[in-house]
Amino acid sequence: MASKKITFLPHDHGVKVAPGETILRAALETGIHINASCGGEGVCGKCRVIIESGEVADGLSDRLSPEDVDKGYRLACKAVVVDDVTVRIPVESTVDKAILNTAPTGRQTAKIQQMDLGDLKEAGLFIPPVEKIYLELPPPERQDNLPDVSRLVSYLKLRHNEHRMEVSLPVIRKIPDVFRQEDFKVTATLLRPVRPEGKNRLVNVQSGDTTDRNYAIAMDIGTTTVYGQLVNLITGEIVAEHGEFNGQISYGEDVITRIMYAEKGDGLEKINQVVIETMNTIINKVMGKSKIDPEDISTITIAGNTTMTQLMLRINPRYIRRSPYVPASTIYPPVNARQLGLELGSHVTALVYPQVSSYVGGDIVAGVMGSGMYRTDKLTLFMDIGTNAEIVVGNKDWMACAACSAGPAFEGGGLEFGMRAAKGAIEDFSIDPASLEPMNITIGNVRPKGICGSGLITIVAALFETGVIDSQGKYDRDRNSSRIRCRNDIYEYVLAWRADTQIDRDIVLTEIDIDNLIRAKGAIYSGCLTLLDEVGLSISDLDQIILAGGFGSYVDLERAMVIGLLPEIDPDKVTYVGNSSLMGAKMSSLTNSIRQHVVEVTNMMTNFELSETSSYMDHYIAALFLPHTDLDLFPKVKDRVARRRRGQG
Amino acid sequence: MASKKITFLPHDHGVKVAPGETILRAALETGIHINASCGGEGVCGKCRVIIESGEVADGLSDRLSPEDVDKGYRLACKAVVVDDVTVRIPVESTVDKAILNTAPTGRQTAKIQQMDLGDLKEAGLFIPPVEKIYLELPPPERQDNLPDVSRLVSYLKLRHNEHRMEVSLPVIRKIPDVFRQEDFKVTATLLRPVRPEGKNRLVNVQSGDTTDRNYAIAMDIGTTTVYGQLVNLITGEIVAEHGEFNGQISYGEDVITRIMYAEKGDGLEKINQVVIETMNTIINKVMGKSKIDPEDISTITIAGNTTMTQLMLRINPRYIRRSPYVPASTIYPPVNARQLGLELGSHVTALVYPQVSSYVGGDIVAGVMGSGMYRTDKLTLFMDIGTNAEIVVGNKDWMACAACSAGPAFEGGGLEFGMRAAKGAIEDFSIDPASLEPMNITIGNVRPKGICGSGLITIVAALFETGVIDSQGKYDRDRNSSRIRCRNDIYEYVLAWRADTQIDRDIVLTEIDIDNLIRAKGAIYSGCLTLLDEVGLSISDLDQIILAGGFGSYVDLERAMVIGLLPEIDPDKVTYVGNSSLMGAKMSSLTNSIRQHVVEVTNMMTNFELSETSSYMDHYIAALFLPHTDLDLFPKVKDRVARRRRGQG
Repeated sequence: MASKKITFLPHDHGVKVAPGETILRAALETGIHINASCGGEGVCGKCRVIIESGEVADGLSDRLSPEDVDKGYRLACKAVVVDDVTVRIPVESTVDKAILNTAPTGRQTAKIQQMDLGDLKEAGLFIPPVEKIYLELPPPERQDNLPDVSRLVSYLKLRHNEHRMEVSLPVIRKIPDVFRQEDFKVTATLLRPVRPEGKNRLVNVQSGDTTDRNYAIAMDIGTTTVYGQLVNLITGEIVAEHGEFNGQISYGEDVITRIMYAEKGDGLEKINQVVIETMNTIINKVMGKSKIDPEDISTITIAGNTTMTQLMLRINPRYIRRSPYVPASTIYPPVNARQLGLELGSHVTALVYPQVSSYVGGDIVAGVMGSGMYRTDKLTLFMDIGTNAEIVVGNKDWMACAACSAGPAFEGGGLEFGMRAAKGAIEDFSIDPASLEPMNITIGNVRPKGICGSGLITIVAALFETGVIDSQGKYDRDRNSSRIRCRNDIYEYVLAWRADTQIDRDIVLTEIDIDNLIRAKGAIYSGCLTLLDEVGLSISDLDQIILAGGFGSYVDLERAMVIGLLPEIDPDKVTYVGNSSLMGAKMSSLTNSIRQHVVEVTNMMTNFELSETSSYMDHYIAALFLPHTDLDLFPKVKDRVARRRRGQG
Repeated sequence: MASKKITFLPHDHGVKVAPGETILRAALETGIHINASCGGEGVCGKCRVIIESGEVADGLSDRLSPEDVDKGYRLACKAVVVDDVTVRIPVESTVDKAILNTAPTGRQTAKIQQMDLGDLKEAGLFIPPVEKIYLELPPPERQDNLPDVSRLVSYLKLRHNEHRMEVSLPVIRKIPDVFRQEDFKVTATLLRPVRPEGKNRLVNVQSGDTTDRNYAIAMDIGTTTVYGQLVNLITGEIVAEHGEFNGQISYGEDVITRIMYAEKGDGLEKINQVVIETMNTIINKVMGKSKIDPEDISTITIAGNTTMTQLMLRINPRYIRRSPYVPASTIYPPVNARQLGLELGSHVTALVYPQVSSYVGGDIVAGVMGSGMYRTDKLTLFMDIGTNAEIVVGNKDWMACAACSAGPAFEGGGLEFGMRAAKGAIEDFSIDPASLEPMNITIGNVRPKGICGSGLITIVAALFETGVIDSQGKYDRDRNSSRIRCRNDIYEYVLAWRADTQIDRDIVLTEIDIDNLIRAKGAIYSGCLTLLDEVGLSISDLDQIILAGGFGSYVDLERAMVIGLLPEIDPDKVTYVGNSSLMGAKMSSLTNSIRQHVVEVTNMMTNFELSETSSYMDHYIAALFLPHTDLDLFPKVKDRVARRRRGQG
């Protein structure tokens, strides 16, 4: 559908949006503020706008009188764009004219970068890890009664030049009957060696010609969520995917509590079983959706952080959480999937991504591989901000990595009204710099319940940009607004009044919450500086940033730079790779070139325990400001702050 | 104890025996006949002898009157040698003087040949398959927090020059805790690669120094019996051993009935479980006897015939028994012992001997390897005569093999009074050529219950040598003896009258029984001839015979040649290797040199399906005589028969 133009007045700012968008979301994306308290549910009635020309659908509400409607008033959160339209935002009180004259800064999220089979082939990186070969074997006769396996192996050698074949017991068990189902017409599935000098593994034999069906499963074991994809190895397409909460959540929200559980009695066995069950649920879902024959799946590639990996493999994680933080292994051998308890064919091999250290795990290695960081010349900062934050700096020649104890702020944890990115979470925000009225946008357009990670960043950035908080995250005590108040000696900003929420309480952001965020972003930013420092480089040397993790998909890059979470860099140089762990797992399923390099890359990744790195604490303390003590690191923010001060002055 | 001399009169033949031997057994071993019906239980009272000088213990019985005793009469079956002694055998009736004048031919069984670790080392064949290395690892510190496995692998590389290390998941699972039990002092167990270019497998890690404890299990899965040995890999000693009937016996006596059972419903799963249970019983017995730590066992090597191997590995054996007789595989990959259901440590690797064909299995390959046949220049005939008979002809440069459908005669099957070699079986025999009175010796010296395989051979040989049966196995109709009679049109010889048996029936040997034996030995002998024929050689080219199997241990070589079971060859060139399957399994546990060669040897062994080999039927028909149609193949027997005829003439 052709996009429609909305012209916002009095700003006189035009923007094109897809039909079906609400006026409120369109304004927010454009950077134009409309007061809105209730998240978009149409309850608070604050987001009144006047349709001056053109047509919108809906937007009516009992909060608007018939007279209002006649005058063209609609609720922006409910009014849906169907045609070009001119919308006036009523300037009801003391809107600062200066604000109207500055060009609104629209949201900018990172470009999404995903590689597919075509890209791999183009880059010369396609080495099929699993291949099927159709064979019409000569049936045995009295004068030629070679054992079945010998017949197959020698035919593969003679007719297909396939040598160095390894055949596992589960396949041998199948062979006698499968051979005789279609008169010795069979398809052999070969798992290629990672290194050319290795052996081919005959992992399956099927009757008839099944060469057009060749699949793999890629899986990411997150602390919170487990995702699986069923990948077509011939086309590179994702045939089906599914995500589930990691069943281990009921044993603890984060890796530390999981480890503590695993240390007690048969805790490891239990918690292992739980994640295997989650994995099996996902396997069964993607199998059900795709309706493919389980026999046509040959591998499952699994990536997860170090703790998730050890729990999944049933390896005691006790020493991960104790100084000096030693994981069990870097590299895990390929293992039969059934041996792990996975409900897959007896021939399926499970490949597990290697780990760097106790807190830089296979998910990060998968990200480095899947994003292509391991083969770029560009100096790259890779950041995965989730329950924990991991960063990698480097390029194809060297890499330094670290885990930052960011705390759970970016997942909505540790805040008075924090919540996960679920329905009712304030995910986006704007503030009227004069009236301090908010524009809350919630996930699902319902009355707010709390604040999620990306919302928090946007709120703090907006409060800072408008001078409502200072660089230390303290509210301006001189502001005369009912929205800023002091309760139990703690200043807070009221995002939504009780009546406009779902929780029968005012939703507020306290200075303690802001302090939490500053510590979290300070830990991450100073981690980047420390890694760069250790190799004699600085932020300005960075050629690109790769963001990974669920968090990165929605974060407004400019706002993340305003608060000093991301280094200030041209937003066009920031790409988002989504669930990089899952992507890395998928890429390993598609080509052996990834697996050829993964061990050396893992060995190349120098791990820094930040708490053991002398410069880290200095960097950290310097980063406990918005955006930073050293404003020269953030020239654009510096400029904007200066302009704001001039505007106020 | 010094041996004692017995002088038998009227033969005037002296022999030395160990004190404690009975006069009866001593006579038998020497080839001197004493009438004895009841197997040595002292019931029949026939084996009366006179002690002319010297002393014996016991030998009294209520079958001897006080006068007899005074005169020096004793029962030979009860009289025990304690000193040099002269024994007269009463010539009660018509003993042929000629017999007395021929030198008695004593029993001659094959020399037992067994290799041990010392022999291996001497022959330069010792390549340790499992080695333990004691390590004092530097414990991790904050500035050195390598993953545990990486620490171990890099230390092995740096300090012990151990490279190309593969670590399996079960070992990784152990490592974190084991490392910390004795402050990173650990013993690593390495399974060496069979080929030098292969990888070392780290199969176990134990805390402290356990390098003085290194064991393996060797196991032979026979159709009837399963044997296991616990082998000390440092000394080569057998620490404990145990045998059990194969639990599958209740599902059928031979491989064919087992296969038939396995083909039905979940028969394969059941019959697999049963043999695994037998194996576990043996494992537990040898572990219990030896009291070693299960952690100190790293491998189990298993040899069995093709059907036993497939059932043990749970591979459908259906096609083994159907033309064209195709087994599943030649070579089986090493497999985790737990995966087979064996109650061994999670790190234990099971190695399975390769198979040649459906009826020449891993037991025979193990025999070829363990007996050293695979590395000799001598033209060798290897024979394993058990439930089935397998033969291999060749040397280190070539080998031909075949299975002979000998039937169960050599295991005491298919005879009217046949039985396994158990208590009460007539295992040895002699006949008075004039009176036709027997000298029965039974296992356990009890009244006879039946005839076992080695007894059968001796009986038939003795009957033939004395002319009681002719070369077609027919009784001399002209003999005037109550022992030879015709019942239901079938001639038979009464070995023991009802009163002297345990079964309340006369124990006889019928012409049908003899015919069975002739067919069985004919099948084996003609198999040998056929194999030799196919490569243009003949019996006279043979340098040695290696006998294997439980049967071979007791068989009288001369007698076996008399009936034409064994080719006529200098008895000193015949060696007996016992349970060669078990020995081969043991040898593979002790040195990798066996495993290095086993695949090429297996591939070198050309299998002949005798029924498909054109010359076989001719050879077979020619072999259906005692000893053979062509007496030139048996010059000594020919000579003996000629002498006998002269003696009679």
